[in-house]
Amino acid sequence: MLNSSGNNEILLGIDGGGSKCKAIVMSSDNKILGTGIAGPGNPLHGYDQAINSITESAKLALADAGIDESELGNIVAGVGLAGVNLPVLFEQMSNWQHPFKKMYLATDLLIACLGAHDGNDGAVMITGTGSCGFSYVDGHPFIVGAHGFPHGDKGSGAWFGLQAAKQSLLSLDGLIPPSLINDKVLALLEVKDDVELVEAIAGKPAAFYARLANLVFDSAEEGDELALAIVAEGADYINHVARQLLKQNPPHLALIGGLTPRIKPWLDVTIKAQLIEPINPPEVGSVIYAKQQLQLQ
Amino acid sequence: MLNSSGNNEILLGIDGGGSKCKAIVMSSDNKILGTGIAGPGNPLHGYDQAINSITESAKLALADAGIDESELGNIVAGVGLAGVNLPVLFEQMSNWQHPFKKMYLATDLLIACLGAHDGNDGAVMITGTGSCGFSYVDGHPFIVGAHGFPHGDKGSGAWFGLQAAKQSLLSLDGLIPPSLINDKVLALLEVKDDVELVEAIAGKPAAFYARLANLVFDSAEEGDELALAIVAEGADYINHVARQLLKQNPPHLALIGGLTPRIKPWLDVTIKAQLIEPINPPEVGSVIYAKQQLQLQ
Repeated sequence: MLNSSGNNEILLGIDGGGSKCKAIVMSSDNKILGTGIAGPGNPLHGYDQAINSITESAKLALADAGIDESELGNIVAGVGLAGVNLPVLFEQMSNWQHPFKKMYLATDLLIACLGAHDGNDGAVMITGTGSCGFSYVDGHPFIVGAHGFPHGDKGSGAWFGLQAAKQSLLSLDGLIPPSLINDKVLALLEVKDDVELVEAIAGKPAAFYARLANLVFDSAEEGDELALAIVAEGADYINHVARQLLKQNPPHLALIGGLTPRIKPWLDVTIKAQLIEPINPPEVGSVIYAKQQLQLQ
Repeated sequence: MLNSSGNNEILLGIDGGGSKCKAIVMSSDNKILGTGIAGPGNPLHGYDQAINSITESAKLALADAGIDESELGNIVAGVGLAGVNLPVLFEQMSNWQHPFKKMYLATDLLIACLGAHDGNDGAVMITGTGSCGFSYVDGHPFIVGAHGFPHGDKGSGAWFGLQAAKQSLLSLDGLIPPSLINDKVLALLEVKDDVELVEAIAGKPAAFYARLANLVFDSAEEGDELALAIVAEGADYINHVARQLLKQNPPHLALIGGLTPRIKPWLDVTIKAQLIEPINPPEVGSVIYAKQQLQLQ
């Protein structure tokens, strides 16, 4: 058990997204001592939920590392959150009376980028429940997308899932020919017709729609024309995001997020050739960010 | 002031939609004695809100007709509601301990159709905040669409508004060329860039997006290519809905809803040629429905 003199020896890294919040405890020599996962950490979907998830995940990570949770107030935390690219949410979270010794707040985009490139300049595209592109070159952050659902986040899991739901409804109405997507949507959601489908999806958030993304790729891989068109449109958007990011001349570009293994094969060959594997996950990027900020002081 | 013996002489007609609930009091010889408007009446967006709006609009209509609200329990009401095409909501609303002498519950689609065709067979397309098609021929109801937002309701005000928001964000990110839509969206919402735009639209309901629909048509009428493409896609969907409805051989087809004057000019000429003007508004259709049900007993 570390005592409070250990406050500069370990750091907390938080990655708070729309579906879960991850925390890690890292030693000064970059060893992961413990991890914790709690509920959604995006303040756009609820401030109370977000601060509870951050605190909870941090306590779980401390417990996992064998450190008493009373130490929370002696530890510096790097906190990367979805949603805080919106100034109003950044300000709200900055004003949080957090339980840490110090909190360095950043967007989920920045910590993903710092993590992927081990603290160096670079660019990332994130395709998970949402989608976006981000580069950090010579101290200049640059964002493409990150607009949210349903008005943005093209090429994301939620976007693919929404296309699946939309096209199934059009097809069940006889307005477009049936496709492999229909049966897969009905089977996954355990519904039998359009009325039950609407009941199942009405008012659902992005994370729900993202559950339908894989079946679009499955259908495309089976040669379904409609699915191929959807995948082509989504991949085309990610290609466009990549080209915008590459104009910033990042040393490296990485593709990360849960949809990566599904969408990567469909990207333009010239884009694929430029992708590198991310070095660290976003929560490690939060620790890197906190360290960089501490060194600036 | 009518006394309680007037219960078979007057009827209440309710049209409860996603943005407001309209009520009328009608005499037995089909004269409108009073009208009332209250908040949203679609139980999909909240049961308590819906029943409050229905009761409130009915009381306002009675007051407008010079009838004491204590008479509510002596009057038969025809109640047409958005959302109750979903069985779970139809059942919930049917079980409501309503304040009327009797309540005849129907979908907003059926009462719109009965109103438009004065109680006779026919078909309607509704393009307001949402969109759908409905025909009633030889006792058979037939629905196209009516699936809700954002997964359905193509060609509706909310759909056009969402396209405007999406395309503006893509353009502000440099992923597509700018269009007339951009400046109009930013001006209408009084925001200056993509970050403020996302703050303005994040988590907003269909009725909010529907406010952006007119600017798409404005832009199209000014010759903007992107707006023309969006209008063509929306109008094409309504054309498809019309063709599906016409396969049911309705004696007449009417186009109703707030978006009618904007979208009608863009429909296929063969579809436009078959449209008739609706005879009565939906709330009168609710009274017609109640009368038909009373006669069946």
